[in-house]
Amino acid sequence: MAKAPQNAISPTRADDYPEWYQQVIKAADLAEVSPVRGCMVIKPWGWSIWENMQSVLDGMFKETGHENAYFPLFIPMSYLEKEAEHVEGFAKECAVVTHHRLEPGPNGGLVPAGKLDEPLIVRPTSETIIGAMYAKWVQSYRDLPILINQWANVVRWELRTRMFLRTAEFLWQEGHTAHATAEEAIAETRQMLEVYADFAENYMAMPVIKGEKTSWERFPGATMTLSIEAMMQDRKALQAGTSHFLGQNFSKAQEIKFQSQEGTEEYAWTTSWGVSTRLVGGLIMTHSDDDGLICPPRLAPKHIVLLPIYRTDEERATVLAYVDQLSAELKGVQYHGAPVRVLVDDRDIRGGEKTWQHIKKGVPLRAEIGPRDVAGGSVFLARRDQSPKEKQGVPKDQLVATITTLLDEIQTNLFERAKKLRDDNSRTIDKLEDLIAYFTPQNEERPEIHGGFAYCHCADDKAVEEELKKLKLTVRCIPVEGDDEPGPCIFTGQPTQRRAVIAKAY
Amino acid sequence: MAKAPQNAISPTRADDYPEWYQQVIKAADLAEVSPVRGCMVIKPWGWSIWENMQSVLDGMFKETGHENAYFPLFIPMSYLEKEAEHVEGFAKECAVVTHHRLEPGPNGGLVPAGKLDEPLIVRPTSETIIGAMYAKWVQSYRDLPILINQWANVVRWELRTRMFLRTAEFLWQEGHTAHATAEEAIAETRQMLEVYADFAENYMAMPVIKGEKTSWERFPGATMTLSIEAMMQDRKALQAGTSHFLGQNFSKAQEIKFQSQEGTEEYAWTTSWGVSTRLVGGLIMTHSDDDGLICPPRLAPKHIVLLPIYRTDEERATVLAYVDQLSAELKGVQYHGAPVRVLVDDRDIRGGEKTWQHIKKGVPLRAEIGPRDVAGGSVFLARRDQSPKEKQGVPKDQLVATITTLLDEIQTNLFERAKKLRDDNSRTIDKLEDLIAYFTPQNEERPEIHGGFAYCHCADDKAVEEELKKLKLTVRCIPVEGDDEPGPCIFTGQPTQRRAVIAKAY
Repeated sequence: MAKAPQNAISPTRADDYPEWYQQVIKAADLAEVSPVRGCMVIKPWGWSIWENMQSVLDGMFKETGHENAYFPLFIPMSYLEKEAEHVEGFAKECAVVTHHRLEPGPNGGLVPAGKLDEPLIVRPTSETIIGAMYAKWVQSYRDLPILINQWANVVRWELRTRMFLRTAEFLWQEGHTAHATAEEAIAETRQMLEVYADFAENYMAMPVIKGEKTSWERFPGATMTLSIEAMMQDRKALQAGTSHFLGQNFSKAQEIKFQSQEGTEEYAWTTSWGVSTRLVGGLIMTHSDDDGLICPPRLAPKHIVLLPIYRTDEERATVLAYVDQLSAELKGVQYHGAPVRVLVDDRDIRGGEKTWQHIKKGVPLRAEIGPRDVAGGSVFLARRDQSPKEKQGVPKDQLVATITTLLDEIQTNLFERAKKLRDDNSRTIDKLEDLIAYFTPQNEERPEIHGGFAYCHCADDKAVEEELKKLKLTVRCIPVEGDDEPGPCIFTGQPTQRRAVIAKAY
Repeated sequence: MAKAPQNAISPTRADDYPEWYQQVIKAADLAEVSPVRGCMVIKPWGWSIWENMQSVLDGMFKETGHENAYFPLFIPMSYLEKEAEHVEGFAKECAVVTHHRLEPGPNGGLVPAGKLDEPLIVRPTSETIIGAMYAKWVQSYRDLPILINQWANVVRWELRTRMFLRTAEFLWQEGHTAHATAEEAIAETRQMLEVYADFAENYMAMPVIKGEKTSWERFPGATMTLSIEAMMQDRKALQAGTSHFLGQNFSKAQEIKFQSQEGTEEYAWTTSWGVSTRLVGGLIMTHSDDDGLICPPRLAPKHIVLLPIYRTDEERATVLAYVDQLSAELKGVQYHGAPVRVLVDDRDIRGGEKTWQHIKKGVPLRAEIGPRDVAGGSVFLARRDQSPKEKQGVPKDQLVATITTLLDEIQTNLFERAKKLRDDNSRTIDKLEDLIAYFTPQNEERPEIHGGFAYCHCADDKAVEEELKKLKLTVRCIPVEGDDEPGPCIFTGQPTQRRAVIAKAY
């Protein structure tokens, strides 16, 4: 194991992208399947990425005037039933609590007992329970807007799960707001889409397309659903965040009424918006390579790992003193408002294996430091966004002086790479046969090479949904940016105002 | 409502302490009962206190070498059954998931469908599921210790609930560690008790007694349970945090085995420790008065509220400019490593009502600022730990220069007050008749005046447990500090080494 492998991850992306993804998660020690069907364990390194995501997003939500609160895990079944489309959307994947204790059974062991009068649903999302509270809190226009977010776990009983991307239990934030006017609620919906796009691009280094969903891709019960969509390295789209304008659908179901400034009784206009631990999956699939995870510096658990190298006790003392000094100096540097996160790895394992562990874990910078580096006042530095072989001697003081620039360079480089991949695999398509060809793999052994994003005219119509389903394609969104460009639907010929993005999707 | 009421909270503590507690929560807008049995909604002001608690505790856990991770919400029933005492302890209060979807029922409406092969328990605590993962992760002594914490929601189906103190769903952190030796695990158990005591006393300003539980008060499955115990203003004890040495009980049930340095196969020694949203209840009951919440500055959502007062538009402009300037100056001051948290309340409601809202919410400092204060370069300052009538003019620059000292004074004052209450209501008792008298209310109309903490010799014996039950008393703990003081059990005469604390308890 001391010998550097050809590639740390097997299979490679080209060989088997889905399996490569699982292996990256394993090699970086991010998460693990649990004995509970569809549920995962998020391990410390993976959790640390999520924690960093939470911290940034939480700051952005507060910056835009939102407060955090917490609502119950359970939703009475009757609440879910109040909004017809909503319950239709979630009924098939609900964890249902029916009993409230365990009793010794007739054949030994325990059996559920204490049957509940009304079953409780483990929240798949919280519109209905939060709406019920808002109905109590809102009487007058003076009580509006309500701008609340919650960090929570939710459960959707998915049949096919994949770590981070689709798990029965997942962690997320869900914002729920209520407003006096439709305009204000729509502005909120759009604002939160911008917040998500800002986060995805500037922290995750993951370029996204902001757009609106077609009617059939909307959140169950929503009037308008906006999303950010990113391209993964297998050219498939990942929906990375959604922001919903719920109109008065939920406020009517939940009776969120208020007296307007003019004295009339009105229903509130509500929104909801969320991102989840799925983002960690998006981060992995956007940047990682055949040697493992590559973590964008803005969200990395550690920015740099210092790897002392020595043979004798005497060398050890010299090298460690130097490393500790460097660590202290680096921690004294502020990177975007917080100290540089430094890891000193002095574990007693072989140097090659140790270095590879940090490559697989995606630490942005690695500095190997041996007696010769100490003598020369330098470090042997490697960037995770470059080949493992590209290392160079850098004076220690220069590293301290330039580390924030280096980290920002890596951050930008990752974004630019991902953007290039997306742009290189996006096309404007106007004929159905071209669309079909675009998504037909050229090479049977590499089925992931199948086009990417196709910009097409596409009517918001049931017939189109059916056609796409046959082709195993989806409309990701109708991008909100850019001018209108009218044209006939590629499937039905109906006139449309803007192009939509068609892709295979997670 | 503009007239200052005699007391903002009705009933007062003396009139009806339990109801006073509910009314403080309502008046400070901390939380609300939800339509889901036994579950509460934590509102933004209450959440902000919990968020501050989380942030401090999380820092303390990391400082002591722990990492965060996340484990599944659900526990297969068979896992719970593996540790006999453990399942015995929790079987009576489990939320049980038995189905994974909803279907249209025969009489309209929905019914649970998709019955699970094995019921899942919504975690009441996570020893069993986390232990199952540790069993996979631990092979060699080199894999130890594992020092992990998780922030999570848990569910215990309590029959009688009270906001923050006892709710069916609550939020907490649960630390779970595994070690190679009993000594190391015991040291961890003690260390975390110290962390909790430090947090309770220095952040919550809540004095606590650190001690060990009797065998019958232990966590189900634990070998030793340590706790911190605080006295509330009704002289009842609140268990505020627990740290358990689990011996090899769970590692044997879960097969957490490792190869020792000597090559033998050993079971790991494990611990678990937790504090919950119950702490918010403890904070409320320790400090608040008949005018509402009093929040210790170290955990207060806001440190100071600035209340501009004006009549004309011209006055408004002058006062607001002054207030904004002061706000910026105060935010520039660091209080224990973070900027002072300033709230400017310029809502268009009557001044008296507005002031009382902030009194009820427990903001440590209030500054009223009218045209005369502007002219004099001062503010009219009031401290929440003093009577609402005690206000004084303070030069603005002096406020900025001394606000951290003022906040620390309030923090210390709250701690000292609470400590005095506890010390004034603690006694050493050696005769059973004195113990009974001590806990017998002197006045039927004020049943809460009933003694407090009694330090008695008390054998760790079933017979003692029964006697205490009859008296509606509990052994809170055997304090770990101070020298041994042998003496005969107040109930049985058996010899004991140290005194225990007896009290009525939440």
